[in-house]
Amino acid sequence: MADAKAQKRQKFEDVFSKLREELLDYLRQEGMPADVVAWFKRNLDYNVPGGKLNRGMSVVDSVEILKGRKLNDDEYFKAALLGWCVEFLQAYFLISDDMMDQSVTRRGQPCYYRLEGVNLIAINDSYMVEGAIYYLLKKHFRSEPYYVYLLDVLHDTTFQTQIGQLIDMVTAPEDVVDLSKFSLDKHRKIVIFKTSYYSFYLPVALAMYICGIPHSPPGTHDADDPYALAESILVPLGEYFQVQDDFLDFAAPPEVLGKIGTDIIDNKCSWCVNTALALASPAQRRVLDESYGIKDKAAEARVKALYEELGIRERYAAYEEGAYRRIMGLIETIPEGGKDVGAGEVRLKREVFKAFLDKIYKRQK
Amino acid sequence: MADAKAQKRQKFEDVFSKLREELLDYLRQEGMPADVVAWFKRNLDYNVPGGKLNRGMSVVDSVEILKGRKLNDDEYFKAALLGWCVEFLQAYFLISDDMMDQSVTRRGQPCYYRLEGVNLIAINDSYMVEGAIYYLLKKHFRSEPYYVYLLDVLHDTTFQTQIGQLIDMVTAPEDVVDLSKFSLDKHRKIVIFKTSYYSFYLPVALAMYICGIPHSPPGTHDADDPYALAESILVPLGEYFQVQDDFLDFAAPPEVLGKIGTDIIDNKCSWCVNTALALASPAQRRVLDESYGIKDKAAEARVKALYEELGIRERYAAYEEGAYRRIMGLIETIPEGGKDVGAGEVRLKREVFKAFLDKIYKRQK
Repeated sequence: MADAKAQKRQKFEDVFSKLREELLDYLRQEGMPADVVAWFKRNLDYNVPGGKLNRGMSVVDSVEILKGRKLNDDEYFKAALLGWCVEFLQAYFLISDDMMDQSVTRRGQPCYYRLEGVNLIAINDSYMVEGAIYYLLKKHFRSEPYYVYLLDVLHDTTFQTQIGQLIDMVTAPEDVVDLSKFSLDKHRKIVIFKTSYYSFYLPVALAMYICGIPHSPPGTHDADDPYALAESILVPLGEYFQVQDDFLDFAAPPEVLGKIGTDIIDNKCSWCVNTALALASPAQRRVLDESYGIKDKAAEARVKALYEELGIRERYAAYEEGAYRRIMGLIETIPEGGKDVGAGEVRLKREVFKAFLDKIYKRQK
Repeated sequence: MADAKAQKRQKFEDVFSKLREELLDYLRQEGMPADVVAWFKRNLDYNVPGGKLNRGMSVVDSVEILKGRKLNDDEYFKAALLGWCVEFLQAYFLISDDMMDQSVTRRGQPCYYRLEGVNLIAINDSYMVEGAIYYLLKKHFRSEPYYVYLLDVLHDTTFQTQIGQLIDMVTAPEDVVDLSKFSLDKHRKIVIFKTSYYSFYLPVALAMYICGIPHSPPGTHDADDPYALAESILVPLGEYFQVQDDFLDFAAPPEVLGKIGTDIIDNKCSWCVNTALALASPAQRRVLDESYGIKDKAAEARVKALYEELGIRERYAAYEEGAYRRIMGLIETIPEGGKDVGAGEVRLKREVFKAFLDKIYKRQK
């Protein structure tokens, strides 16, 4: 079982090696000096693979579910390539996130910008990681009828993520604590824009396009469009995922989570603090105002004690059950069975969304 | 005359105001908080207009030349919108250039990242300036048959510019002077990738697409494709422009140039130093090794004296004449007259390129 999982990951990673070589070959063909090619190679190797790869591999999984069968080599390569586009996009964001947050480590190693001789050059390196996406798409998908849709959905979700990053930074700067800027509504906006679109909607939309699922004709009711339908499920799913992430940062034992939560100390606009703010008495609110977002272990402990006092654990448990039921209800609005589709034609399936939900529901890390 | 020029600029700037409002309206429609909308507004206002706008306005000029007539309001708006896309792209690069170079001023005011409360958030702000391009293109051009070509040429030139920036930073870091990394060949690569593609080829290609000039059918000889032809002229034209820019940084009187050249002090991989390196005796080379790229007025004066000694001015005059003749020769390879085209059909014209060349030839600032 563990072996199958490792093999699956290895197969996906092998596609990265191929894509990296294509990118480096392009630079070489254009006569770039060896030190420039080596710099770009290190950038890609350091920043793109090495994460959990859930987003990227979910494109492949979704294509397999939609087609209802194993993929042949060409189909696998194309699905994995689109999966890697999501991982490249994520890397582009993480390089700058780490710089803007002045983070120290990422994935158990020093943040990229902290490498000797890199520092602010990391900005252009992040640009290149994004630029690489469109080079690869043009090379492999230019003649496909859905090519322009791939570009559109990548552009749309990229801009949404940038906007989400901006709300987050304006609302919760690390150095100025002002809890009056926080609210559960603001939290929802941040989460949907910064995480849901690119982590949940984007991989499924890419999978749907490559399977040839068409948009409804213009003028049809929006709810009938399979992409609008997918978005209407995946955006709440991503919201649920991030609320859970915020809760685990506070509640999960570090040995299970694999890291020590720092949301309270870092003044993060987390679901926990926003829920606490909504429930707090004036006296409890003063505790939050005085102790949230400062680099002090005792202050952090006071916030945690207040979370317990306010029953954040129970609130979360209720949230999770509600979110699960609500999302299951949304998934069941997807028509299944019903009218026949032509041979080889692919339509949306509930299983795509259930696979995501099952991976998330009651996860501990 | 000065009035006509100011009016022309004003008309172009009015389109920016409209595009900015469309972008801010999008954020408002998505329910973004007022402080987030205000932040994005300041980002756009501070970074996008305010330059010379040559690149952007050259899209409009080129469309007028290609169509051979004044544009109606809709045609003008669309051409100006594409012109602003070039200016947005330039702003995206300049925000990060200033950060990576740790520059102090840009266009006579503090660099954006130096504004109170901005600093590294400027990275995400630069991302958003780029993201805005694709939002605007989708909104206004999605149904045009050439839409996907607009996206492709923007992606291609963006990646090329990023690569150009990387060669430049790897070859000429501001703090480590190593002239053995420099060469006229490397200089050419930097200039073509970092400047020519986005400043010269991109505006003309956008103008050609909006005029409906088709690519040659696949399989035709590459030299017959009007876009390949335009590129073959505009890339050398951009190279000539940048060589001239490098020369003026050294040779133009500051009161004419409007700024004080700092290429020698900043260790820039300029045409002047590369030409000097190609001509220098071992003793002269030692002067360059010891005095180039350091923050010292006397050292800068020694490099300048050496440039005079090596006859850089005469070398440049010869270069300029050669470049002018060579580019004129290339322009004359464009077929004119010849076979008829259908009514309303537009074909490439020499005048597009001559307009660029005339603006550049023997400019003093």
